[in-house]
Amino acid sequence: MQLAALRHRSESEDCFVLDRNRVRVRFHTAKDDVEKIIVHYVDNYMPTTDTESVEMEKIGSGEVSDHWVATLEVPYHRIKYTFEVIGKDGDHKIVGDRGIYDFSKENLEADGSYFRVPYFHLIDMDKTPEWVKHTVWYQIFPERFANGDKSNDPANTKPWNPEDHPGREDFYGGDLQGVLDHLDYLKKLGVNGLYFCPVFKASSNHKYDTVDYLEIDPAFGDKDLFAKVVNEAHKRGMKVMLDAVFNHIGKNSMQWQDVVESGSKSRYADWFHINSYPVEPYRNPSKGEGEPPYETFAFEPAMPKLNTANPEVQDYLLEIATYWVKYFDIDAWRLDVANEVDHHFWKRFHKALVALKPDFYIVGEIWHSARPWLNGDEFSGVMNYPFTLQVEDHFFGHKMSAKALVEHLNDQLMLYRDATNQAMLNTLDSHDTARILTVANDNQDLALQAMAFIFTQTGSPCIYYGDEMDMKGGNDPDCRKPMDWSKEDGPVWQRVHSLIKFRLDHSEVLGKGTTLLSVTENGLIKVVRKQKETIIAYFNTTNSDVEIDLAPSLSQDYQDGKLAKDGFAIVVK
Amino acid sequence: MQLAALRHRSESEDCFVLDRNRVRVRFHTAKDDVEKIIVHYVDNYMPTTDTESVEMEKIGSGEVSDHWVATLEVPYHRIKYTFEVIGKDGDHKIVGDRGIYDFSKENLEADGSYFRVPYFHLIDMDKTPEWVKHTVWYQIFPERFANGDKSNDPANTKPWNPEDHPGREDFYGGDLQGVLDHLDYLKKLGVNGLYFCPVFKASSNHKYDTVDYLEIDPAFGDKDLFAKVVNEAHKRGMKVMLDAVFNHIGKNSMQWQDVVESGSKSRYADWFHINSYPVEPYRNPSKGEGEPPYETFAFEPAMPKLNTANPEVQDYLLEIATYWVKYFDIDAWRLDVANEVDHHFWKRFHKALVALKPDFYIVGEIWHSARPWLNGDEFSGVMNYPFTLQVEDHFFGHKMSAKALVEHLNDQLMLYRDATNQAMLNTLDSHDTARILTVANDNQDLALQAMAFIFTQTGSPCIYYGDEMDMKGGNDPDCRKPMDWSKEDGPVWQRVHSLIKFRLDHSEVLGKGTTLLSVTENGLIKVVRKQKETIIAYFNTTNSDVEIDLAPSLSQDYQDGKLAKDGFAIVVK
Repeated sequence: MQLAALRHRSESEDCFVLDRNRVRVRFHTAKDDVEKIIVHYVDNYMPTTDTESVEMEKIGSGEVSDHWVATLEVPYHRIKYTFEVIGKDGDHKIVGDRGIYDFSKENLEADGSYFRVPYFHLIDMDKTPEWVKHTVWYQIFPERFANGDKSNDPANTKPWNPEDHPGREDFYGGDLQGVLDHLDYLKKLGVNGLYFCPVFKASSNHKYDTVDYLEIDPAFGDKDLFAKVVNEAHKRGMKVMLDAVFNHIGKNSMQWQDVVESGSKSRYADWFHINSYPVEPYRNPSKGEGEPPYETFAFEPAMPKLNTANPEVQDYLLEIATYWVKYFDIDAWRLDVANEVDHHFWKRFHKALVALKPDFYIVGEIWHSARPWLNGDEFSGVMNYPFTLQVEDHFFGHKMSAKALVEHLNDQLMLYRDATNQAMLNTLDSHDTARILTVANDNQDLALQAMAFIFTQTGSPCIYYGDEMDMKGGNDPDCRKPMDWSKEDGPVWQRVHSLIKFRLDHSEVLGKGTTLLSVTENGLIKVVRKQKETIIAYFNTTNSDVEIDLAPSLSQDYQDGKLAKDGFAIVVK
Repeated sequence: MQLAALRHRSESEDCFVLDRNRVRVRFHTAKDDVEKIIVHYVDNYMPTTDTESVEMEKIGSGEVSDHWVATLEVPYHRIKYTFEVIGKDGDHKIVGDRGIYDFSKENLEADGSYFRVPYFHLIDMDKTPEWVKHTVWYQIFPERFANGDKSNDPANTKPWNPEDHPGREDFYGGDLQGVLDHLDYLKKLGVNGLYFCPVFKASSNHKYDTVDYLEIDPAFGDKDLFAKVVNEAHKRGMKVMLDAVFNHIGKNSMQWQDVVESGSKSRYADWFHINSYPVEPYRNPSKGEGEPPYETFAFEPAMPKLNTANPEVQDYLLEIATYWVKYFDIDAWRLDVANEVDHHFWKRFHKALVALKPDFYIVGEIWHSARPWLNGDEFSGVMNYPFTLQVEDHFFGHKMSAKALVEHLNDQLMLYRDATNQAMLNTLDSHDTARILTVANDNQDLALQAMAFIFTQTGSPCIYYGDEMDMKGGNDPDCRKPMDWSKEDGPVWQRVHSLIKFRLDHSEVLGKGTTLLSVTENGLIKVVRKQKETIIAYFNTTNSDVEIDLAPSLSQDYQDGKLAKDGFAIVVK
């Protein structure tokens, strides 16, 4: 047995409290190396001679590891537990808090062999909002969704041409009135979560260079209109998520302009990370220009980084964060560049928002694995790029085999606690990436197959505006074309609509059920989700049609016992 | 190469910020399986073609793993990094955030291959008090240290007989005046940290059943006297640590008595975890008496558990915690049963105390591995039982070989960040365990050898009162005998005194230097600590004298080129 591969980490994603009496434990071993694992457990203050035991279930194979789980139940909110591991080579060990021991009655009864959850505290539990598990998101880039009010169009607004290739500085006149006008459209499409890119006053078309976090950008509308959008969305059963850019502020903000003018004498000098005065001109080290006078997002001089260790900055940002909840009743914040802001601040942020709305949803933009932010006291979830990038690596271009995809996704599910996995935001494309149809080389079947795949996975799926309208687009800014309203009710629209409906009709199992991923003998990816009902989905990512024996509940790709190439079929049991 | 054994966890004890420009990274591999590891790293916003690289140092072998470290330095407070791992079998891999890849230029340049520290935030850094690294502690059990004031002796106080075997309910009259009278003694012994078992008003002799956290127990003295003890200790350069019992309160407390009397109508009902009324009589499930009416420490009815999720309880306990700092200037809290209180509370606790005294020391009583509490925002360290129990398993009774001890201690050092390891409280015995001399079967050389061993390790060493006086004692309550004042300046006292002086004279290297542990060819345990100076220590735990070639700076056990059995020798370079 590969002893160095035996892994369990107490009080982490490997051991988490489910309620006052149950914990879920995970264990990891080298692939195909272990026959059986038994967990022995008992109340912390009961003797180890009184343990109960349960065999762990092997729930998936990762890239190099196998993953095992079990749920343990105890009466008095405390547990000690240890793992009896039997290798395929017959090796028989105990793995506990102080190391690895040969299996023996004596070692099994030694108190030092036991891991512990000293007390099951609900206040420390990783709780994520229930409604997110029943939500399909729709991401709106406000400047490009719909122009409902021509009177607030910026100067030089270009004509609304969905075939256009937008430049970095172009404006098309999209606004909140346009969103309000199309809420019934969104309701008809079936989504029940609206994720807005920034709507606050800013200079650019994307509004990531905030000038005033407490004002709606005048080209988008005003606060009254925004309040109406939220109210009308809520009336239609839709949640509203805004985009908060708290890592940096725009250079045109009053605070930064004061620093530019008054230098070290500015009362905002400590709001930023300043290395030397004067702060202008900026020197970009990535261009060999020398040491930067101040810290920025990336090496972008227009986005000076905020000093979130300064209590005044913290209070300012928290006031903003709570303002839009208290007075406009938003349901969620998506946090831009969330990983570059300190944990200390995000913990205050979480506490302030959950105090206002206990089921508030907080999702961070983090492109890498994000365990440090996902322990229940900072974010509910993150934009799940490591997940979606692996999905894309397989479905689009076959950079990764089906087997490798399944392995990577199994590993991925082991990164976070179950409640966190269920609150991930799963997007295949966004304002920051090329559109899926373009990534799929204009193969709409393939794009929809990948979309269907993420709809069957754990995590809240998100559609980027216009993907239901057959829209194409390369990398930013090409993915930000004006919405093509001509394709409503078309064949692609209908398929996306069915997918959304299916996800929401089965959101108990698709949102919270267990997940088993595998590759069938004939090369299909098979997804099994289980709770009260069971859903089985097949994805044909091979190069030809594949015979299968089933009667799918949802599929346009299944005919005469065959699942078409680039097709999927979903069965409800 | 054993791929499932390749381990690194970003933003954890495997990757932590040292200052604004440096991070320390660790990597783990199967034992003797890997030849070489190179870390490639660069600023997050610089291309991966611009990486620098550094070879990792193998700093120790654990039970089943090898441990590797490196320090990485970058200019702009952000880093991405990946590991190039070369197996002894020639296997050549890249280990990054999204998995394991074959080594190739393309994979090395793929952004997904990189782990990240998005920004080096000092506010999130694990900082532990500098003074703790230069402290030797002395633990005082007040009822048994010295009786300085006979006027406050409890009824039926027994004569001060160090040969006595104390019963559970006995009183001997020890008090704070006794401590005050012996501060010069402690100064002469050389210790510079006083760790007091509880001094607050309580019913028992050990005072763990607090009746009033804001009163000094009248049998120990009063607040004026306590203030004097702290001031006089501070004058002598000694820090003062008190014992806080916040998991539970004593049954004689006003709050619990109110619940006993008024049941669910008590205004303190929500201060506790109550399952059913009336709360008395208590039913102990470990004795088969049925379901307990309320939650307690262990199954101890006299110690009802406090509901620390109740904000009122939190405020009450924080008021106590800050009161003794604000008005009496104590320097540290030792937290009883710290693992059973919720993290949420400890985070508030940490914040409140560090706001009062930035270098306040917080040490939790946790007997198992304690990573969840040691990320810089709860405790500075814990009572390092997993460490000391392994030391005892080898030195006393040879349940563990020298090789196994070194392996376990190497693993132990990998559990926490460096700053945390340096702030651990390392005790060989306490009021909860038998005394080392007794554990060592009355072999004083052996007891002193083990003590010397912990004095050469990372972590703040602590002596239990009377160990310097040759005192014996079995498990609690036998380890709580009245202090034997007759052995001052005796041979054992002199050796303990020399050890304390040596530790403090070399606390830069012994408190903060790197640690290399090994077993020499002739079976000695060899400890190398390095910083500006180097200290090498040898411990002969074999069954006979062993020849060594050195000139020790501190040893009574080295003669004519031989290190005696049960002896140690320390060399300063």
